[in-house]
Amino acid sequence: MSSVLGNKIKLSVFGESHGEAIGCVIDGLPAGVKLDMEKINKEMARRAPGRDKTSTPRKESDTPIILSGVLDGVTTGAPLAMEIRNSNTKSGDYKNLMTVPRPSHSDYPAYIKYGGNNDIRGGGHFSGRLTAPIVFAGAIAKQILEEKGINIGAHISRVGNVFDTPFDKNEISKDIFDDVLSNTFPTISKEKETEMRAVIEDARLKTDSVGGAIECAVVGMPVGVGGNMFDTVESKLSSAIFGVPAVKGIEFGIGFDFAGEYASNVNDCYKVENGEVKLVSNNNGGILGGMTSGAPIVFNVAIKPTPSIALPQQSVNLETMENETLVIKGRHDPCIVPRAVPVIECITAFVILDLML
Amino acid sequence: MSSVLGNKIKLSVFGESHGEAIGCVIDGLPAGVKLDMEKINKEMARRAPGRDKTSTPRKESDTPIILSGVLDGVTTGAPLAMEIRNSNTKSGDYKNLMTVPRPSHSDYPAYIKYGGNNDIRGGGHFSGRLTAPIVFAGAIAKQILEEKGINIGAHISRVGNVFDTPFDKNEISKDIFDDVLSNTFPTISKEKETEMRAVIEDARLKTDSVGGAIECAVVGMPVGVGGNMFDTVESKLSSAIFGVPAVKGIEFGIGFDFAGEYASNVNDCYKVENGEVKLVSNNNGGILGGMTSGAPIVFNVAIKPTPSIALPQQSVNLETMENETLVIKGRHDPCIVPRAVPVIECITAFVILDLML
Amino acid sequence: MSSVLGNKIKLSVFGESHGEAIGCVIDGLPAGVKLDMEKINKEMARRAPGRDKTSTPRKESDTPIILSGVLDGVTTGAPLAMEIRNSNTKSGDYKNLMTVPRPSHSDYPAYIKYGGNNDIRGGGHFSGRLTAPIVFAGAIAKQILEEKGINIGAHISRVGNVFDTPFDKNEISKDIFDDVLSNTFPTISKEKETEMRAVIEDARLKTDSVGGAIECAVVGMPVGVGGNMFDTVESKLSSAIFGVPAVKGIEFGIGFDFAGEYASNVNDCYKVENGEVKLVSNNNGGILGGMTSGAPIVFNVAIKPTPSIALPQQSVNLETMENETLVIKGRHDPCIVPRAVPVIECITAFVILDLML
Amino acid sequence: MSSVLGNKIKLSVFGESHGEAIGCVIDGLPAGVKLDMEKINKEMARRAPGRDKTSTPRKESDTPIILSGVLDGVTTGAPLAMEIRNSNTKSGDYKNLMTVPRPSHSDYPAYIKYGGNNDIRGGGHFSGRLTAPIVFAGAIAKQILEEKGINIGAHISRVGNVFDTPFDKNEISKDIFDDVLSNTFPTISKEKETEMRAVIEDARLKTDSVGGAIECAVVGMPVGVGGNMFDTVESKLSSAIFGVPAVKGIEFGIGFDFAGEYASNVNDCYKVENGEVKLVSNNNGGILGGMTSGAPIVFNVAIKPTPSIALPQQSVNLETMENETLVIKGRHDPCIVPRAVPVIECITAFVILDLML
Repeated sequence: MSSVLGNKIKLSVFGESHGEAIGCVIDGLPAGVKLDMEKINKEMARRAPGRDKTSTPRKESDTPIILSGVLDGVTTGAPLAMEIRNSNTKSGDYKNLMTVPRPSHSDYPAYIKYGGNNDIRGGGHFSGRLTAPIVFAGAIAKQILEEKGINIGAHISRVGNVFDTPFDKNEISKDIFDDVLSNTFPTISKEKETEMRAVIEDARLKTDSVGGAIECAVVGMPVGVGGNMFDTVESKLSSAIFGVPAVKGIEFGIGFDFAGEYASNVNDCYKVENGEVKLVSNNNGGILGGMTSGAPIVFNVAIKPTPSIALPQQSVNLETMENETLVIKGRHDPCIVPRAVPVIECITAFVILDLML
Repeated sequence: MSSVLGNKIKLSVFGESHGEAIGCVIDGLPAGVKLDMEKINKEMARRAPGRDKTSTPRKESDTPIILSGVLDGVTTGAPLAMEIRNSNTKSGDYKNLMTVPRPSHSDYPAYIKYGGNNDIRGGGHFSGRLTAPIVFAGAIAKQILEEKGINIGAHISRVGNVFDTPFDKNEISKDIFDDVLSNTFPTISKEKETEMRAVIEDARLKTDSVGGAIECAVVGMPVGVGGNMFDTVESKLSSAIFGVPAVKGIEFGIGFDFAGEYASNVNDCYKVENGEVKLVSNNNGGILGGMTSGAPIVFNVAIKPTPSIALPQQSVNLETMENETLVIKGRHDPCIVPRAVPVIECITAFVILDLML
Repeated sequence: MSSVLGNKIKLSVFGESHGEAIGCVIDGLPAGVKLDMEKINKEMARRAPGRDKTSTPRKESDTPIILSGVLDGVTTGAPLAMEIRNSNTKSGDYKNLMTVPRPSHSDYPAYIKYGGNNDIRGGGHFSGRLTAPIVFAGAIAKQILEEKGINIGAHISRVGNVFDTPFDKNEISKDIFDDVLSNTFPTISKEKETEMRAVIEDARLKTDSVGGAIECAVVGMPVGVGGNMFDTVESKLSSAIFGVPAVKGIEFGIGFDFAGEYASNVNDCYKVENGEVKLVSNNNGGILGGMTSGAPIVFNVAIKPTPSIALPQQSVNLETMENETLVIKGRHDPCIVPRAVPVIECITAFVILDLML
Repeated sequence: MSSVLGNKIKLSVFGESHGEAIGCVIDGLPAGVKLDMEKINKEMARRAPGRDKTSTPRKESDTPIILSGVLDGVTTGAPLAMEIRNSNTKSGDYKNLMTVPRPSHSDYPAYIKYGGNNDIRGGGHFSGRLTAPIVFAGAIAKQILEEKGINIGAHISRVGNVFDTPFDKNEISKDIFDDVLSNTFPTISKEKETEMRAVIEDARLKTDSVGGAIECAVVGMPVGVGGNMFDTVESKLSSAIFGVPAVKGIEFGIGFDFAGEYASNVNDCYKVENGEVKLVSNNNGGILGGMTSGAPIVFNVAIKPTPSIALPQQSVNLETMENETLVIKGRHDPCIVPRAVPVIECITAFVILDLML
């Protein structure tokens, strides 16, 4: 089980939902970066639960404590370790999960893999709570990239059957990240936000949960970053993003719509504009032959509905090997998509920084 | 630019479309495997061009020559090197590409990245021809996996707007791979094959190309393979599969359809059957928490239309920095999807073997 | 700057001598190991300073706090994070080091590399104190290896010009590790211990320091572990052991004595003994062609004298760029070799476990 | 068994002594390097056997054929594959080795590891012949480094009990590499060459072999290259160099002599010279805290006597499990040290280039 990401910078994530602490070590950060703790905490807050009815009412104390690698607020070049002490955990809620696995969760394969030794409480190391250290690391990466003129933003592109206006893939300005998408429920269309919130509230009332999608963009990339074959930008991003719980699909540019298209219609042609090469369109989502094309990197990520729901579900008792109906208690998210937005942005930032170093 | 894949077994691919030779080194193969050269050559033939009108009429001599790592037909445990000598290449066709990049190809970012030093002829190292060594390596992996009871198969799930019958995700038998999907245009539905061929022929006559999708399945996996966080089975597979040219999306199980769904409807419940834990459904495509669930691994891959088309396209001259209309000569595939099927199967086999060692 | 070690298990070390905390994350530990905390603490104590006059009188609180990866004393398979809170640090002693680098220390190259941003207090992340997490991780590895019948021990083979009796390389029993070498000043010969202590006391009184060497052995290895070329057991061990501060050389078996020898005299012949293949001698230190031969792995490590001494030394002021005489205050080790013994054993255990998984 | 080296550039070596071909793939070379084939071939010639009586009279055709990654003599940035076709092999000489392992060779552990499937002829993949691709790759690295002002050279520091004059560690000029050490038996002292040759001739006449050592230096390194902990320059170099057959020890700077020394005597002090920081001495061999100090990198490598000798040796028959006296036929090197010199230089160049990219 490897929770280590990256080549030139390495992120090692640790912790369990109901353990002593969660956190991470970031190895290989450049020295001399003055950390903007306000920005980091703001990103952490975007991911934290309990902000409104779209997320679990569970409160988490997400205060990161830096243990090493920073002196007087500036990175030293040594590994940066960070921990978040756990609190407000209700272990009792998860007691019967050890033997009766929750459908669509990691419980059953983890039980087999770790011989019943893994910490099942709250999902243990598989908990969505472990995305907090990812956001922390990614927020730092974001800051460093911003200083290089690279900006990253995302919006909720879909909840249930409500679709947000997609990015105009060839014309994305960082302003939209700052102006429109910096709130806790980021959509391009205000109306669609209202509709999506209604879908989520409906799911919450039914003690069900609903899926969605997130569209993410990176602007300001130079041309020719990434590699061919097995080091494509798509390979690096997808590999990391499937590390975010609940992600089940990723597509770059128009992605699956390419399947129904003709080259004459979707090829991204070139033009000269103000003495520079520009793309006429950006159906490939900023990546050609695995390398950046200069247009914004754009991709869309499918998020499944949180599998933890209060409705009775069919499962099995792994000790008695008999069918058993499971009713999950605890406080869960009717839709994880809004909270996943900063996670997708931040893990993207980490991957892009690793590519740029 | 890294063309090296894998952890415990490493595949290093080399060569350019119009160079001396293409090939690969496979480092870390188990010793004692008696290679089934007939099967390997059969896989190579599935990928080779010139079989029918759906692919380029260009003939390639795809005879693999083993240079090391095999003694009397049996792997020795030392690195297995293989080369395919190039022949029948028409370099002249590509002359003007050096300065006028083909839209939606690697040409432009590669030109910037390598300062104009990369071999542009036939796409150079970015050519689809480089998938031949991948198929070779994957065919060996397939054979080793079959001896462990693990089988891999795929079909053309879509061409243009024609969709094949999808896999019944929870009930896939390896028999369908052998009986139905072993031909050069593998579809589950015979009718859909006819329709798809018509779409491709239409594209060919218009000197255009059309996109599609491939659904791939792995049956026989034990429970609990893979890891959480950054070593998920989805991470490993997606990372490798985006290394196949023209792939622009991947989704596991019902993938993007999760976005429109409720947990109560798509959670994969458990039941006891003949004393064993079984999944009632397999919407997650055989992977939960990044680990195998025991159900078949199922995923769908989006393939863009081959960007090389004979129609005039807008591009730029990188020397004069003026707009220029490009007409690509050469012999190209009106639809690369059928030839990509064995590539997807074989790279999947390589990744799965790497996970199993 | 990478402080990450290992392939199948990954050790990520963090912390600075005078920072908030030091610690590590161990990613990939097998699940189900009941940690023997008494043994772990005993190893930590062997490394800790302040035990007798051969080491610095500085006291360190080396109590490891486990943050994750362990439930009810048993490993869960999730990353195991551990921290040691720092205390009893005298930062004031190091003030002038920022601009006047200590000779033979990391100060000067680190200053250049990190642009003056690295934490210089007590050596920062380069401090020998960072070997505490290595000992912690290695102590766990040792325990797991012992359960597989593999034991690791070491002795002080040299201090100044006093040489301990070397291991009888072909006949090492684990008993000698338990009976003779488990104390804080492990030598095979009691007399040599007395002589070595005298050399160290002499250095201490002169406020100087003295170098030495450590011979380490691994018994119980199966035949054929390791790889050829770049994955030899020698490669893996040497790479990790040069990560221990002050190590400047390593030799396997008779090592540098091979340079003066003839094959007819030092080749390790074979014999059949009780139906098994045995080596007649073990000049190669248990490794042939990079793989284990079945004989004990034996190697010798050169340790330079601690460069921190109280005597005046010639250095430069990096700000004024003028020569400056440096007098280092603080409490230092007149000989680091005794405290380095458990570090060498433990990092060896970690590498061997990584090879065996 | 991994024959892959490097991080940013990856060297994958393949082939067996008596197989079809040997060679390598170099992945990640910078684009735009005009290869100096004359220099490369000169390095290859230094390693090739059959030059004089100090090496085996066996002739090898060591002509490298470049298969990919080079266009019009210039690197393209794509993987560079190279092969050397094997010829002049006498397989018959090795027939009985399969069951009767040669003492001090890889035969026995390889037999166990690969279940008897490995190619034993001429040592197979473990053969010293596999250093030819290493020299090829390293010769390219050397050329790239020279263009950055970094030069690498080595001399035979010892054969039997004859010691060459060591490098003056703090004052090494690249001129000595070009002027004194460019011949096939590189020593600093002409007299010592004569003495060494006499020792080797004596060993040859006795059908025995003799060991030695090689001292290698890298000049022109900037300050602060490398990392601390597990990415030290010593870690990287030692890991690669133990991949060269017959290497059994490595020491940096004065290495094992540190064990007998006092800090006051061997600490490398600083001085300001012409406005720059210089080291007063270079006992640490150019590496402090795992990073380059600006002084030349200097290290010494122990080479064991070639274990293949014609004298009768005690071994065992692995089939009958009885003792058996082995007489090795074939043509062997009475001293491998002279031929190992370019190998050490070239693998050093590859590692240093990987660190510098």
